[in-house]
Amino acid sequence: MATTSAIILPCLFLIAGGQNNHDWLSWGNEAILPPHSSILEKIDTKPTLLVSGGRGNPTQPSSIAAFNLPQMAIAEDAVIKIVEDIKHGLRYLFQTNNSNTLAIVGTGSLGIETVLDNLVEPGDTVLILLNGMWADRVKEIVTRLRIPIPMMKPPGSIFTMEEVELEIRSKKPKIVYAVNGESSAGVFQKVDFIGDLCHKHGCITVLDVIHIVGIQPFFMDKWKMDVVVCNTQKGIGAPVGKAPMSFSSRAVEKMTNRTTTPHTLLNDFQSWQKYNYWRLDATRPYFTHHSVPILLMYTLREGLALLSRDGLISSWKKHAESNLYLRKRLLEEFPFLTDTVTEPKNRLVGVVMLSFPNYLNSTEIRTHLIEKHNVDVNNGFGPSVGKVIRFALLGANANFEVADKLVNVMKETFAHFNVSSSPKT
Amino acid sequence: MATTSAIILPCLFLIAGGQNNHDWLSWGNEAILPPHSSILEKIDTKPTLLVSGGRGNPTQPSSIAAFNLPQMAIAEDAVIKIVEDIKHGLRYLFQTNNSNTLAIVGTGSLGIETVLDNLVEPGDTVLILLNGMWADRVKEIVTRLRIPIPMMKPPGSIFTMEEVELEIRSKKPKIVYAVNGESSAGVFQKVDFIGDLCHKHGCITVLDVIHIVGIQPFFMDKWKMDVVVCNTQKGIGAPVGKAPMSFSSRAVEKMTNRTTTPHTLLNDFQSWQKYNYWRLDATRPYFTHHSVPILLMYTLREGLALLSRDGLISSWKKHAESNLYLRKRLLEEFPFLTDTVTEPKNRLVGVVMLSFPNYLNSTEIRTHLIEKHNVDVNNGFGPSVGKVIRFALLGANANFEVADKLVNVMKETFAHFNVSSSPKT
Repeated sequence: MATTSAIILPCLFLIAGGQNNHDWLSWGNEAILPPHSSILEKIDTKPTLLVSGGRGNPTQPSSIAAFNLPQMAIAEDAVIKIVEDIKHGLRYLFQTNNSNTLAIVGTGSLGIETVLDNLVEPGDTVLILLNGMWADRVKEIVTRLRIPIPMMKPPGSIFTMEEVELEIRSKKPKIVYAVNGESSAGVFQKVDFIGDLCHKHGCITVLDVIHIVGIQPFFMDKWKMDVVVCNTQKGIGAPVGKAPMSFSSRAVEKMTNRTTTPHTLLNDFQSWQKYNYWRLDATRPYFTHHSVPILLMYTLREGLALLSRDGLISSWKKHAESNLYLRKRLLEEFPFLTDTVTEPKNRLVGVVMLSFPNYLNSTEIRTHLIEKHNVDVNNGFGPSVGKVIRFALLGANANFEVADKLVNVMKETFAHFNVSSSPKT
Repeated sequence: MATTSAIILPCLFLIAGGQNNHDWLSWGNEAILPPHSSILEKIDTKPTLLVSGGRGNPTQPSSIAAFNLPQMAIAEDAVIKIVEDIKHGLRYLFQTNNSNTLAIVGTGSLGIETVLDNLVEPGDTVLILLNGMWADRVKEIVTRLRIPIPMMKPPGSIFTMEEVELEIRSKKPKIVYAVNGESSAGVFQKVDFIGDLCHKHGCITVLDVIHIVGIQPFFMDKWKMDVVVCNTQKGIGAPVGKAPMSFSSRAVEKMTNRTTTPHTLLNDFQSWQKYNYWRLDATRPYFTHHSVPILLMYTLREGLALLSRDGLISSWKKHAESNLYLRKRLLEEFPFLTDTVTEPKNRLVGVVMLSFPNYLNSTEIRTHLIEKHNVDVNNGFGPSVGKVIRFALLGANANFEVADKLVNVMKETFAHFNVSSSPKT
């Protein structure tokens, strides 16, 4: 060190900027706003059973383990293979052959904003099948871009083919947006007819498949879907932080032929094509235009690898069986609970949503479950807060053991609130 | 299982949507597009010394370790403490008392887009101190929002107070955007005078401090900066995936009084205020409007905790000493290398950028370094590709051992390319 200090000291006060002639190496702490004592403490977290479907989702252990793999530079062959593997895994998840399949950095919500910003141009009309909170948010996203013409229905509604075709004929939208699994209302919107309608009437289908893919049957190509968006932490079982998406050639054509730029530069589809970070053209050089979240890439790759090894049918089966088993056991044990979504065909596979009688408040019950049992359930959104209880057995938690555990903690919980759990008569 | 199958089977074909009356539980794999064989293989990564400053950055071991902590639900007290701790840590990092300090999900680039989308309204003028690749990208971001009036200078230039004041007087901008550390050109732009100028002329300073904070002295409040944005993987030493930022009361006032909405809903400052996810108002209920990347939150908290425990002066010292030591040793050992940034006061602390004579090609050298030594360096951006070599000793790599190792691998590398390394005469 003695040999270098002569070099260091004269340079440092020049480099320090705004601190001319001030040798800050000799400063005491008095020149600095001190750190808060709270962050000097040890981090304190505890295991929680995540079955709310929204507030948090369990990550598959093999996906978490990938965080501990060595970090590499982004342009190495092993990393390019990971990029390709993620694309393979997503194509399998979505059941598509689209080469334009990738995952941006961000949450599912950012993915949805990004897709719409890329697809919608001034003058376009967007038809939204508004069936709950998530579609309502899309209405707001589109409003910030252009003027939408949403279809208005109460939360929990389902659209028929006839209704959608009527709206397409009269509103002539360029984009039809649907939420396949409206998790806030617990409802499943059948979408396989929308692709044909959109092909017939020259519009692009955009689909939120966040609570669907990996959980229940979905076929992007067979159903002629143009754009699908999801997140990483539900059916895939990877941590939050990437938004997977896939584009049909019809969608790519619309984005490539647009005459205005999207508002985003980072997530402009044409930037992705230009920099080729997702190897949309595998014959061109690989280049990135942002810092790659390499550890999140590893974990996403491992989540998709697990799904690919186990197989989609096995994953759909596991989610269907465990969630149906939980619903059946809860309804048998607690006769005062009722199905929130009355029509079985309108229920999402990956959600068990039950309504409470007026004398129970699910917000209090939720608090008891988290405080006494470290079990995180959902107690409704907006108008349903306090009136429903929502479980979601996803990924690592989609099994009978977790279902049985939940029935047992509910027994203790209802007893705690002095609610009878005698069998239905 | 026997007791539940009677329930499951009749429901499933209804739920499956588009597969009416098709019992997909009995499907063979022929109905499904199969997974690609590549993703069924084991993931294959190897340790790499990340000293490029851009292609990848080392994560501090204590930050990585946080990925393995138990996942919790987002509204629990322990998680709210983590949110508060991150804010404390960022305030210390930025040297500010701003309550409006937070970190969105995404990369630094998304942070910059988000800040501009929130701040700029139709009719505003944005003055960009364009001194390299990163500012050039901001010119494009602002163009996608409104029309900017950038100051044009060749990459690597530095702006004086007189120049900036002249531009402010003539262009009357609402926003002045500067890149404090232009890593692509290796230059440091002094910014402490910009705050006073902006206060005097009624404009808002927005500063990219990505390659600065945690690496060399920076004082948000003392220098009267209005908005700063960074990423998590340089001075903090946490994984990529969050974009920290802080807003002065002047910036908050501009965002709160705007009459139009930003293009983003997810990252609208007013959404953050409304949902209170970052507890911008600690007296109001805590609510989130997106899936929280809880594991990234843990790692960011731990990166900031390490910085808070060690202290900023220690971190600045470590970065200055190790990078200066590396520069000195490289210039001594390899007399054919020269400083790319000639003026010492214009050099960034966290970058060692050296130019090559014509007979050497740094792209070939970079390839040799990664293939033979697993060392990732940078070989320039745009016009400088192949002409420079750029090292960045950041975070866990900011020490003399890594510097010495790099000198040794460069000795082997130059010998491999038959370049003399005799002492300077």
